This record gives sequence, C-alpha cells and structure tokens, in this order.
Amino acid sequence: MSLLTEIHEQPEVIERTAHVNAGPAAQVAALAAACTHAVIAARGTSDNAGRYAQYVWGTRNGLSVGLTTPSLFSVYDRPPRLDGALVVGISQSGESPDIVSVLEEGREQRRPTVAITNEAHSPLADFADVVIDLVAGEEKAVAATKTYTAQLAAVAVISEAMTGGSGALDGIPASVSAALAQNDRAAEMAANEADMEHCAVLGRGFNQSTAFEWALKIQELTHVVAQPFSTADFLHGPIAVLEPDYPVLAVAAKGPALEDVIAVLERCRQAGASLVLIGNDPRLGQVGPLLEFDPTVEEWLSPIPAAVIGQLFAHHLTLAKGLDPDQPRGLHKVTRTT
Amino acid sequence: MSLLTEIHEQPEVIERTAHVNAGPAAQVAALAAACTHAVIAARGTSDNAGRYAQYVWGTRNGLSVGLTTPSLFSVYDRPPRLDGALVVGISQSGESPDIVSVLEEGREQRRPTVAITNEAHSPLADFADVVIDLVAGEEKAVAATKTYTAQLAAVAVISEAMTGGSGALDGIPASVSAALAQNDRAAEMAANEADMEHCAVLGRGFNQSTAFEWALKIQELTHVVAQPFSTADFLHGPIAVLEPDYPVLAVAAKGPALEDVIAVLERCRQAGASLVLIGNDPRLGQVGPLLEFDPTVEEWLSPIPAAVIGQLFAHHLTLAKGLDPDQPRGLHKVTRTT
Repeated sequence: MSLLTEIHEQPEVIERTAHVNAGPAAQVAALAAACTHAVIAARGTSDNAGRYAQYVWGTRNGLSVGLTTPSLFSVYDRPPRLDGALVVGISQSGESPDIVSVLEEGREQRRPTVAITNEAHSPLADFADVVIDLVAGEEKAVAATKTYTAQLAAVAVISEAMTGGSGALDGIPASVSAALAQNDRAAEMAANEADMEHCAVLGRGFNQSTAFEWALKIQELTHVVAQPFSTADFLHGPIAVLEPDYPVLAVAAKGPALEDVIAVLERCRQAGASLVLIGNDPRLGQVGPLLEFDPTVEEWLSPIPAAVIGQLFAHHLTLAKGLDPDQPRGLHKVTRTT
Repeated sequence: MSLLTEIHEQPEVIERTAHVNAGPAAQVAALAAACTHAVIAARGTSDNAGRYAQYVWGTRNGLSVGLTTPSLFSVYDRPPRLDGALVVGISQSGESPDIVSVLEEGREQRRPTVAITNEAHSPLADFADVVIDLVAGEEKAVAATKTYTAQLAAVAVISEAMTGGSGALDGIPASVSAALAQNDRAAEMAANEADMEHCAVLGRGFNQSTAFEWALKIQELTHVVAQPFSTADFLHGPIAVLEPDYPVLAVAAKGPALEDVIAVLERCRQAGASLVLIGNDPRLGQVGPLLEFDPTVEEWLSPIPAAVIGQLFAHHLTLAKGLDPDQPRGLHKVTRTT
C-alpha cells in the first residue's frame, strides 16, 4: 500500500516542504535577482515540475526559464555557455548522472546553482549553492507522488520569495485534503475507463505540467499509452487521432487558459471522445464528467491539488485493470541515465 | 499526390534553402554573438526544428537554447524578461498568433529577433530583424515535410555561419536523394506494421528531434498513437508500457548517442517489442529491421536524411492502413493558436 499511503501524506508533506524552505527559497531569490534567465535540468516526473517552474517563474517573476537537454552536458560533453543563467537541477534522488553533470558544469562556469531534491546528501546537492530539501520522507512506491507535489511546492515557495511575498501556500494543504476526498468518484470514473488502452491528456498554461504528470503516472502504473499535450500543440496535428470513444483526459483551472481548453474539449466531444476531466470550474462539468478541486485556489497553485486527483485516478485505473500499483512493470525507483 | 511529390522535392529544396540563406544566416550569427542565449518559439513540426536547434547551436556553437512556452506571451500576457536573448520564431506559415506574440515582445524589449518561415511576407516576418526564408515553395499537403527539412537546413546554415565555416551542407541533397531510395523497403516494413495502433518512437541527442517529428507525421497521417521519447526519458517511466509485439520505432546515427540507443533497444527487444529502425550504423541492423541512410553524413546533419526516411515510412503506413495521405482527418494546413 505504499503508493496510496504516500498519496495521502501529501497535505502534511507540502506544509513541511513550504515551511522548511522559506530560508533557502530566499537565498535562491537573491541568486536569481542577479541572473538574466534560468536553465532547468530534470527528467521524468521532475521534468514536469520544471514545466511548472517555466510558467510560475515566467508569469509571476518575469524570469525566463528554459528546460535544458542534459545530453549536451553528458553524452556529447559539449555544454553551452551558461552566461547569465541560474542553473537548477531537479531530481528526487539527486543521483541521475546527466542531471548532476548540468550542475557540475554550472559550477565550472561560476554560475549560481540550485538543487531541488529529496536527498540533501546526494551528488546533485554536492554541486549546489543552495539545496531545496523536499523533506518528503522516504518514497517507497516506484511511481513518484509526494515528491512531485513537494517539488511543485518548492517551485511555488521560490516564486513567493522572488516576489517578496509569503503565505500564498497556506491554504494548499487543505485544498489537497479536499482533493483527496474525490477518491470515490475517481474510483468510479476509473472503473468506467477500465478498458482504456490509450488516451490523450490535455492541459494548458500552468496545468500543462499537470497533464504531463497525469499522463506519466497512468503510463507508469497501467501501461496505457497516455500521451500528454498542450491543447495548442494538440490542434497542430495530433487532434487527427480523435475518433468515437477515444479517451481524452483534460485538466483545467479557472483562469486565462480555461476558454481555450473548453473550446478544444468541445471539439473532442463533437468527435465522440470519451472525456475525463479535472478542474474547478462548473463549465467543465457541462462538457464531461468532472473530478473537482477547490474552486478558491489561485490558478498558479492549482497544479498541486489537480495533480493529486490525477494520482488518485491513475491509482484506481491500475486497480480497475487488475494490476498492482506498488509493482509497476519494468521500472526501478532510481533511474540513472547518462 | 501532394505529399509524395513534396517528399521528393526535398533534395532540391534543401539545396535552395541553404544557398539562399548564406547571407541572412551571417546576419543571425552577428546578432547571436552579442547574446547570452536563445529563446525559440514554435509549435508542432516547427517545434521539432526548435529541438534540433537546441542540440546544434548548443553543441557546435555553445549557444544555450530554450524552447519557450508561447502562452506566457499570449494567453497569460505575462512575458518574462528576455535580457540577453536572441528571440527566434519558427513557423511555416508565419501566422500562428502565439508564436508571433513572442517575436513582438522580443522587439518590444529591444532584443534581436529572427523569423524562420516559408512566408517571407507574414506577421512573424514583420517582427523579425532577420528573416530566414525557407523558399520551399508552396506546401499543399497538410502534413509538413519539405518545410520541416528546410527548417533543419536553415538551423544548420545558421550554425555554420556562427562557426565561420561553410559548405558543410554541400553533400546533404545527395544524402537525401539516397534516403529517398529507401522507398520500397520503407513500404515493405510499413506493410508489416499495418495493424499498429500505437507505438513508441525513440531517439536521443541530435535525432531526438527526428523521433519527435517521425511520431508527429505518423500521428497526423495514420491516427496511430505514436509517442516520442528521448531514450533517457523513456527509461524514467514510460518503458513500463513494453509488452510482446509492442511497436518501438527508433532513429540513431553514428555518434556519442548511439550506444545509449542500442542499449535501450536491446531491452525493448528482450521484452519482445516489434522494432522499426532508421540509422546509418550496421550494429542497428543486428538489433532489428533497419532503414538505412548515408553512413558518411556527420551526426549533426543526420536528422535531415533520417527525417526523410521517417516521412516515407509514415506515408506508406498510411497507405497500408487504407487511408489517404493527402486527406488527414481533422487537420487544416494553417493552425492558428492563441
């Protein structure tokens, strides 16, 4: 029962991550103030936290964030110039050599480096000027859940420090607890989709990261081919896959991206797609079956409760398929890629 | 027959794109010399050309390249600071408002702007200090082929200008002609995979872009759910989808990324996956059925002939499924996203 236990630990973990990292986040903010842009290195789940940082630090802090291609630093050993960059590595284990190599190069080029990791004593942390310790506790399940939302909380706390504000995350543990109360409805909707073999997972803006993470959880746990898209990218080609009963999952919060997502979902519905939605606006409920989260959460923080509902759905889809969420096929907890 | 005609025009188009843009590429190089990094805005096929630029400009020119999230500039209207950035928009039509908004903001912030487009008189070109005109001729097929390889050629010519070299692309039109000669074998291998409903498409390094573009072509034309991955990201979770007969497509060239791709393909083969490979190293042929391109092409230019073979395979898979490559479902030639 590791996965389900860890899913339910999240309100507490997020509160702890936010609390413990106020000081380190202020240090990151001070370093960022002297940078023109940020470069983030991450893979898998952590890469989705990087996508979230692109939106949060970009819209709220005016910091341009690029997700780097770690193989420039490792496989090709031809790292680019990092002039002006804040260099950030995100890795739950702090061990993947390609991610470590980016921070090592950042230090070599005398750029400020930050590690966001659940292992404060790890190779990644060793090359960091500031370590954001997720303090999520040991994560036993192969599929990352609490370390993901802790990474989002860390990104959010850094954003708060950059604006000079504080307290924005105070309500998030309660929003996450409320999200966990969607458990039974998530189980019901997952049971309806038990025969799913593939699906598209859509989001835009802040919740593009949620769509990518939701798809990854489904893929890791159920072996369903779950392909995530920004709704805008979906229109630039992949929408061609739509046919009657094609499962389309989508996540959206109240905010500027909502209209766009609803418009795409309307097209999906007209094409006969089978919809599963996560959101906090009642209009989504008119388009398809909706798993709801806190309607009062600010859009930029909505990926935290939204991701939790995605985890619940993925967990129940796994059970509905007769699989074991704690024994995903072909995966190990720590993946070391070079 | 637009699609097949345009696929075959590519040797000529690439030669023309490279020839015509020597001057503009030198102008881009001069602008880049005064920048700390580059920010690229693109969607769909053009986004894959952006991925290629990340590797080429990064490894060969030391220029750090980030792919931006256009919705920061459009949907959210909260553009980040672009201090130090060369701002590049890639769009075949030059019309997508979200991509245009990034160049408009670049100009607003007095940063140098570059448009890579097949429409020299377009909104995107209007906001560009330098226009790289792909001169690919009108592309009638909905699925972009010649404009994609022309975009790659443009990125490569800019890289050459940044190194101060020239002539690296001279052999590419011949490599592409040789790639086109794989037509019959591509048809045969596609016929063997006619029942494919989904697949993973793998690549790493320079040819990660090729994997993404190959997947997009298959998805647009055949409605197969084709999901692209860096081989490294594939190991961080999605490898769980593997089961006997699962189709895994992969592309790799001789070079530092090759060992890594072969190692992942061995795991896929052991799991019983059905492989379709594009490459120019005979060792790949020992792992699975191989569509070969010029073994003498430099790795950094290999995505051009490799992409062409991917197009041929996608075209023949479309025919093998009884579909019309010139009438893909649900798509329009110009996609305008905000």
